Amino acid sequence: MKIELAKSCGFCFGVKRAIKLAENAPNSATIGELIHNKEEINRLKDNFGVKTLNSIDELSCEKKAIIRTHGITKDDLSILKQKNIDIIDATCPYVTKPQKIVEKMSDEGYDIVIFGDGNHPEVKGVKSYAKGNVYVVLSIDEIKQISLRNKVAVISQTTKKIEHFKEIVNVIMEKSKEVRVFNTICNATLLNQEAVEELAKKADVMVIIGGKNSSNTKQLFIISKQFCEDSYLIENELELNKDWFINKNICGVSAGASTPDWIIQNIIRNLEKF
Amino acid sequence: MKIELAKSCGFCFGVKRAIKLAENAPNSATIGELIHNKEEINRLKDNFGVKTLNSIDELSCEKKAIIRTHGITKDDLSILKQKNIDIIDATCPYVTKPQKIVEKMSDEGYDIVIFGDGNHPEVKGVKSYAKGNVYVVLSIDEIKQISLRNKVAVISQTTKKIEHFKEIVNVIMEKSKEVRVFNTICNATLLNQEAVEELAKKADVMVIIGGKNSSNTKQLFIISKQFCEDSYLIENELELNKDWFINKNICGVSAGASTPDWIIQNIIRNLEKF
Repeated sequence: MKIELAKSCGFCFGVKRAIKLAENAPNSATIGELIHNKEEINRLKDNFGVKTLNSIDELSCEKKAIIRTHGITKDDLSILKQKNIDIIDATCPYVTKPQKIVEKMSDEGYDIVIFGDGNHPEVKGVKSYAKGNVYVVLSIDEIKQISLRNKVAVISQTTKKIEHFKEIVNVIMEKSKEVRVFNTICNATLLNQEAVEELAKKADVMVIIGGKNSSNTKQLFIISKQFCEDSYLIENELELNKDWFINKNICGVSAGASTPDWIIQNIIRNLEKF
Repeated sequence: MKIELAKSCGFCFGVKRAIKLAENAPNSATIGELIHNKEEINRLKDNFGVKTLNSIDELSCEKKAIIRTHGITKDDLSILKQKNIDIIDATCPYVTKPQKIVEKMSDEGYDIVIFGDGNHPEVKGVKSYAKGNVYVVLSIDEIKQISLRNKVAVISQTTKKIEHFKEIVNVIMEKSKEVRVFNTICNATLLNQEAVEELAKKADVMVIIGGKNSSNTKQLFIISKQFCEDSYLIENELELNKDWFINKNICGVSAGASTPDWIIQNIIRNLEKF
């Protein structure tokens, strides 16, 4: 069986940057999981003493707090700033951007529409920068039901697909006279998505590696499954099942933006045994 | 044969306004045809002495010049202002708006995309307000070939269909980080288009009345033909052919935004004879 790695996959610029910041901040604490990858979180804990807290309420004796790539809400940032603590801001610059856009557009009187998942920490953070009307929508049906004013600014969760973002924008164009569209979809996500599609089209079986609660990994998996029915989403090599690879010629491999290279290599070594 | 008039058709607000302005300006001259309707132009000439000039170069002894609903270019407006003449600005407010948007967005450093026909006077006028990069496109292929910067403002010729405008915007969304979409499509056009579609779906034959060089009338005709193969575009009752109506039960009638009510009524009276 031939094993082929997607041309673009794994860690993006923002995650690489966050991990470097964490490695340089020993004995710090991250507010929420730094990335959606348990193995990498354990490595940072074991090698650098970087703790993971569920929320800022759990901060006690730590001297350094790391804001993860997803960012945090404006209120949480204020609370952090009031504490006697070093703040290491690992918010991905591609997430800081929509936060700033939402704040500015809101100031200028635009209704804000965020295309994304309202429960996702990135979206919660971005949304918190709005001062006026702000709506988080995931579907065409949702946006259709919202009554918008004539000036609307639209942004997308960084990990969404542009095709779906366009559909949302198309509905808003019928409702409002001015629609200010900010394409805040992350290029890294796009490149990974394009690469997984290309690979899935020719592969007989696809292995997507990443956290099962990582939305960009799930997206890769959905695209993969569209073009290759035998697609599997795994977090580590222990989940590999050799039955998946019986009579398969080409096995494609891709990985979410939070999957460290050492895990990908580990899985490829295991696949080579089949 | 039952004759049914579209729920919305004929003169729009801008044209009604322009004609009123012309009627109140006897012995004036319009720069270009006031509306795409020869009969109405003749009526204004015969009853109010309103002349039609091809361009401002033809202005000689006239004391009053009328700018028609399409508007004129910024340069032509400057030339007019330098003449010792009263300017009666009958530019439709829905055309003045995109002119102002283009000027403002251009000032703010946006590349401008105008979805429309570069040869149409409205588009020529609107385009003339851009100071930096400005592109007029009619098709997806055209916009795909243009290299745009990261800040783009998009407007539409007032008489275009929103479905096609969306397609243009969708392409730009892939090219540029910020796309500022101004839906400058005129509501009157939209209402006439929706009404002609509704009527064409149930009619056996459709008569569309309007100038053959009027783009909004041509648009109505195209929509009509999509839903009713036996659609005819005519300028006046003389073009009616009784063969069109043989064995037809329902005859739908619509008219472009430049068609005066008296022409519509005239044609309906003639249709009643069949």
